[in-house]
Amino acid sequence: MKRYNIAVVGATGAVGTEMLKVLEEYNLPIDNLKVIASPRSKGKEITFKDQKYTIETIEKGTFEDVDIALFSIGSSNSLKYVPQAVYEGALVIDNSNAYRMDDDVPLIVPEINPEFIKEHNGIIANPNCSTIQMVMALNPIRKKHVINKIIVSTYQAVSGTGQKAVNELRKQSQDYLNNDEVKTEVYPNQIAFNAIPLIDKVNDNGYTEEELKLNRETQKIFNNKEIKVTATAVRIPVFYGHSESIHLEFDIPVDLEEISYLLSNDDNIKLIDNPAENEYPTPLMSEETDQILVGRLRQDLNNEKALEMWVVGNNIRKGAALNAVQIADYVIKNNVIDGGQ
Amino acid sequence: MKRYNIAVVGATGAVGTEMLKVLEEYNLPIDNLKVIASPRSKGKEITFKDQKYTIETIEKGTFEDVDIALFSIGSSNSLKYVPQAVYEGALVIDNSNAYRMDDDVPLIVPEINPEFIKEHNGIIANPNCSTIQMVMALNPIRKKHVINKIIVSTYQAVSGTGQKAVNELRKQSQDYLNNDEVKTEVYPNQIAFNAIPLIDKVNDNGYTEEELKLNRETQKIFNNKEIKVTATAVRIPVFYGHSESIHLEFDIPVDLEEISYLLSNDDNIKLIDNPAENEYPTPLMSEETDQILVGRLRQDLNNEKALEMWVVGNNIRKGAALNAVQIADYVIKNNVIDGGQ
Repeated sequence: MKRYNIAVVGATGAVGTEMLKVLEEYNLPIDNLKVIASPRSKGKEITFKDQKYTIETIEKGTFEDVDIALFSIGSSNSLKYVPQAVYEGALVIDNSNAYRMDDDVPLIVPEINPEFIKEHNGIIANPNCSTIQMVMALNPIRKKHVINKIIVSTYQAVSGTGQKAVNELRKQSQDYLNNDEVKTEVYPNQIAFNAIPLIDKVNDNGYTEEELKLNRETQKIFNNKEIKVTATAVRIPVFYGHSESIHLEFDIPVDLEEISYLLSNDDNIKLIDNPAENEYPTPLMSEETDQILVGRLRQDLNNEKALEMWVVGNNIRKGAALNAVQIADYVIKNNVIDGGQ
Repeated sequence: MKRYNIAVVGATGAVGTEMLKVLEEYNLPIDNLKVIASPRSKGKEITFKDQKYTIETIEKGTFEDVDIALFSIGSSNSLKYVPQAVYEGALVIDNSNAYRMDDDVPLIVPEINPEFIKEHNGIIANPNCSTIQMVMALNPIRKKHVINKIIVSTYQAVSGTGQKAVNELRKQSQDYLNNDEVKTEVYPNQIAFNAIPLIDKVNDNGYTEEELKLNRETQKIFNNKEIKVTATAVRIPVFYGHSESIHLEFDIPVDLEEISYLLSNDDNIKLIDNPAENEYPTPLMSEETDQILVGRLRQDLNNEKALEMWVVGNNIRKGAALNAVQIADYVIKNNVIDGGQ
């Protein structure tokens, strides 16, 4: 069997660390592994499958012997280094926002639109974490029904911002509980025991990039401009696991039993929906699973053509690292590393 | 000036404690004050305006010399003791859900529907905390425009459950950060660094009582059955301050500047809406103010007749204790203690 040289770029970050973990679990046919991070981490060692690897930085020629490079270094760094990786011959799977909406870059959730993977021109984009878990929950429904409109409010974990934000929530919580001064560094406002209704940059229309991503990425992944998403994205003091309160509008009255059946028959979804017995998804539950958790399913009180649902996903795994590795896995198994088809 | 005998029933709870604080600030013409709690607290002393008061329990005749009794002891206890208080001659302002939807019990937010106060028959109901802050934010808007439909997702603080829940969030957070075992007592699931998408009992239609309150109480307070509210109520690890992500649908296209003008000209509302400069309401900000905080105002991306907003309120003060004392203040100033008109 052919083996591949893989690079993980941003290997010390929250997502990069998880990418290495998922690569171990998925057992891809790796020949050489390169672990790449910023100069700050250069020379440090990390362990992968009981073998030590020395962290490198990106230099001229770094990607010449790389087949697939998994990038998670943020948009501005991706814009700087992804073109080099492509030029030097690697296929890049990029977790940042930099290329997601480019017409010649496929935006992929392997369970939903794998058929677009082969159309890559050296870059495949990994969607935003909030988008991935929402489209995963909608997928079995939209295969059967026309979804016109989605209104979603998110409850997002700090790990979506990165490891520094995880540390900040921990430190601020300790300081707050000890009546010590709470310092802010990663977020402009205290996140411990608070909620911050602003994620990413603000646009002229008052929406944040995070909110707009939920609209445009959903349309691109479903290849359907008629699905309209209006979002409010909020950070809450949770370490791992994004939650979403989702309102879905259809063109016909909702049959809740059928929707429940569709969701429970999708292997990628776990329906936890017995609220009378306190059974519903919580972000803590998502730490243990790669499935998307769905619950609180109910018909809109005031609109027979709409329903409400609560969706929880592991933002670091299916929302980022796992989805990226699944794309790599598909590329290898289907031999579409050269793309451009 | 006439002076009144006031009782605070549930004086040691989260809301009762705040009621006493607000009573001190409001300087009502109090003759005698009774502080009443469960037998567990009987005989303990509390200080009110530099004077010591001994906590009593409810006995036969307790309310015979009481003019106004502020109750905050939960629905089942209210059902048990409010009738006695009314029978013994007190006007009850009840913070529980027990009587809110009774046809002969006014449900009051003094800034919105004070004209119904005088129609009481011995009981005036204080609305649910989530409802109060939402209707306060909607009030200047609905005076000018027809609101057809509201979709709201809440981010509720643990203090809404009571002092025990505040203690539980604190203890669980400490234990979690110290890698100690996290124990659950008040909530069925861990609330520290988690989100619980279920508040209050579940109905047959899948909605919780908390979610249904937002619909029926809003309609009763606005005296308008045409305002339809679909809610998802979620508890998050915040001590004080409820937040709400609100979607509003009108019968005509939204003029965002006008809505912004209406909100900023309401003294009870503070519009904090400059997200590009990181200015937006957070629950921590609500600890410092009795105003309802509104921000993230923007037109629905996909519906010119709808808008999105983020509303934060102090759930213990305006959401409970302050609103109750404001009702008492209105009763006294307008001499409608006998009601029944």
